[in-house]
Amino acid sequence: MSEALRTAEILSIGDELIHGSNLDTNARWLAQLLERHGVAVVRFTVVGDDPVLLEAAMREACERADLVVATGGLGPTLDDRTRDVAAKIAGGPLWFDAPSWQAIQDYLRARNRPIPDSNRRQAEFPPSAVVLSNPVGTAPAFRVRIHRAELFAFPGVPREMKRLAEDHLAPWLAKLPGAQPIAQQCLLVLGPSEALLGERIEPFMVAGREPAVGVTASGGMLTIRIVARGRDRAAAAAACEDTASQIRPLLGEWLLAEGEATLAELAVLRLVARKVTVAAAESCTAGLFSAKLAEVPGVSAVFLGSVVSYANDVKISALGVDPALLQRHGAVSEEVTAAMARGACERIGARLGLSVSGVAGPGGGTAEKPVGTICFGLCLDGAVTTWTLRFPDLGREFLRERAAIELLAAVLRHVP
Amino acid sequence: MSEALRTAEILSIGDELIHGSNLDTNARWLAQLLERHGVAVVRFTVVGDDPVLLEAAMREACERADLVVATGGLGPTLDDRTRDVAAKIAGGPLWFDAPSWQAIQDYLRARNRPIPDSNRRQAEFPPSAVVLSNPVGTAPAFRVRIHRAELFAFPGVPREMKRLAEDHLAPWLAKLPGAQPIAQQCLLVLGPSEALLGERIEPFMVAGREPAVGVTASGGMLTIRIVARGRDRAAAAAACEDTASQIRPLLGEWLLAEGEATLAELAVLRLVARKVTVAAAESCTAGLFSAKLAEVPGVSAVFLGSVVSYANDVKISALGVDPALLQRHGAVSEEVTAAMARGACERIGARLGLSVSGVAGPGGGTAEKPVGTICFGLCLDGAVTTWTLRFPDLGREFLRERAAIELLAAVLRHVP
Repeated sequence: MSEALRTAEILSIGDELIHGSNLDTNARWLAQLLERHGVAVVRFTVVGDDPVLLEAAMREACERADLVVATGGLGPTLDDRTRDVAAKIAGGPLWFDAPSWQAIQDYLRARNRPIPDSNRRQAEFPPSAVVLSNPVGTAPAFRVRIHRAELFAFPGVPREMKRLAEDHLAPWLAKLPGAQPIAQQCLLVLGPSEALLGERIEPFMVAGREPAVGVTASGGMLTIRIVARGRDRAAAAAACEDTASQIRPLLGEWLLAEGEATLAELAVLRLVARKVTVAAAESCTAGLFSAKLAEVPGVSAVFLGSVVSYANDVKISALGVDPALLQRHGAVSEEVTAAMARGACERIGARLGLSVSGVAGPGGGTAEKPVGTICFGLCLDGAVTTWTLRFPDLGREFLRERAAIELLAAVLRHVP
Repeated sequence: MSEALRTAEILSIGDELIHGSNLDTNARWLAQLLERHGVAVVRFTVVGDDPVLLEAAMREACERADLVVATGGLGPTLDDRTRDVAAKIAGGPLWFDAPSWQAIQDYLRARNRPIPDSNRRQAEFPPSAVVLSNPVGTAPAFRVRIHRAELFAFPGVPREMKRLAEDHLAPWLAKLPGAQPIAQQCLLVLGPSEALLGERIEPFMVAGREPAVGVTASGGMLTIRIVARGRDRAAAAAACEDTASQIRPLLGEWLLAEGEATLAELAVLRLVARKVTVAAAESCTAGLFSAKLAEVPGVSAVFLGSVVSYANDVKISALGVDPALLQRHGAVSEEVTAAMARGACERIGARLGLSVSGVAGPGGGTAEKPVGTICFGLCLDGAVTTWTLRFPDLGREFLRERAAIELLAAVLRHVP
């Protein structure tokens, strides 16, 4: 990391955030941008529009960090106070920038919008601020030195914030003296609990280790994230890979994939690369697997369709499952998921058919097949595989999510 | 608000948050819970797992606020440091709680999971902490007095955090001296943009109004939340209803439903009450509507199944759509959604069939049917209705979510 830029903080401003009406997605996006430029973000702060509380938060951030990126509070209304508060901390009055006011008027006029006088406020800036023009909205951003920190103030509208950060913050970061790039590498793990995985890779997770290793959980998937700094991007990436190469042998078949892509993206990429068309027969997941696949743009090249066979009659009529199988083994059985997977291929005309049938609860569990028992089936070019997993009963939502993830993982495991 | 509890802050802990890998949704949820109990949240802070930076953030929050709710850092791995840091600030060593360790072992054993020794760490607590048991996971929470603040520490997994906050934080807030009972009432709105709705009900949304009125948006659905305090629950509820009765006439047909239930729950309740079986034919949503229905336990009484007809061939083979219709009008047309809805009823044997076909982007838009054009169909006991909506192109995820919500709303509108 740059000697001149040790730490960065992000400050999100707005009553709608602090009251829980809107989710702050700006801080996350900015953190990713900053990390890509080798800047470590150490804190996000969210405050409302109250000027006293905003001033305290902004002052503290500028005293702690070398770089503070603020979003929000640059609108034309009276509750937009980022300009005023920054001026107060910088110790001088706001100044009026005539070219900015002209640009705001031009922007509104080009869109046949009225030009309320309140927009004039958006052309005012704290002392010594550098004006950062906004081609996609009325609120210009600015950059100003406050205490030890460089403060960037962007509008809160995500679309405008992203454009302005790319136009003004990214080039500024790239020019920092001695900026040390960060690299990160992800290992996607499916199988163990977070505790079990943590135990296996415990020596890598100690505080202060370089590269840093962390684990995050989402819907039963675990992601091991390795973050390293280096002289240049290649050195940082090499440090990541060095740690990854020590961790991989500890994971065995738990290791599902590597990289930043989501599991759905990886599955779709694999199917597209191998030109394998896919269909599904979903019971307890009721379309969740198909919906996850279809999150990925371009999936239509391989995904043909699915049958959600919630009722047994639909398993029989729409997938051709033999009623005798249902009678003899029950809907949650590998015999039935085998027939469902085969039916998905035949009825929909796909090379790969995936199926799932399970007890997601809260009702429906038995001693033999308790809540959490989920059977899977996979048919690839006519060859059928089935398997059963017994998940802990962490609730209906978890079980359905986990089952859908299992099918995405099955694509990676079974389509070579 | 209680005299004894002027300000609250929320502290979210985890490297996955500060690196931008995961979005912090816990702070927003907690802010809404606290507001419902009359507690004003003035700041959210997000920090990583670094113990020095975590200690600074926790110490500062506990010096500023009367109540600090922390989430994350209670897992079994070494990078989970909330316990240690809280103990350090509280000024004493961690103590081991044997009953908690027993509960953790019981929890894992009941789910046939291994019991790694690392989980023992989760039974350690800061000095004077009150243990808050966790029935839905291994990490017990705790409450401890630090400086002027009461600190609640919850696990970061949203499902566990929510359950523990409802079990332990909400009752604690309700018992605060001078706490006034709170009532809340929700109006579910579908149709206008958030800005348009905000304009319509602007006089109700001024800061400091009693009862308070707020709007939250989720996937195109808007919820107007009215929160009132009163001497007792009945008085608070009456104040809510008084405001609701003034707002209702302003909403017209935008008003879809009232209450705390989700749209999926309302749709399933309606279908169960009217004994109407349902099936779907989903194209651009690819199972999302069916998956949302199936989130509701007991849905199997009415939901039979669906066809995800992503490819045109599947619309023809699995739903019986006439190829000539596809040829003449295109897959995104009311002619085709009419045939899909009828096909869903006939092929799956349901009284109600719902269908959707649209341009979710990023590709596939034309001048006549730009991205955001979505056609719907509904067939109830043989009678078919179709309609087309043109949504702003707020991205593939938004459009698919909005389309699935439209079908849930259609159940309420068309099943009397």
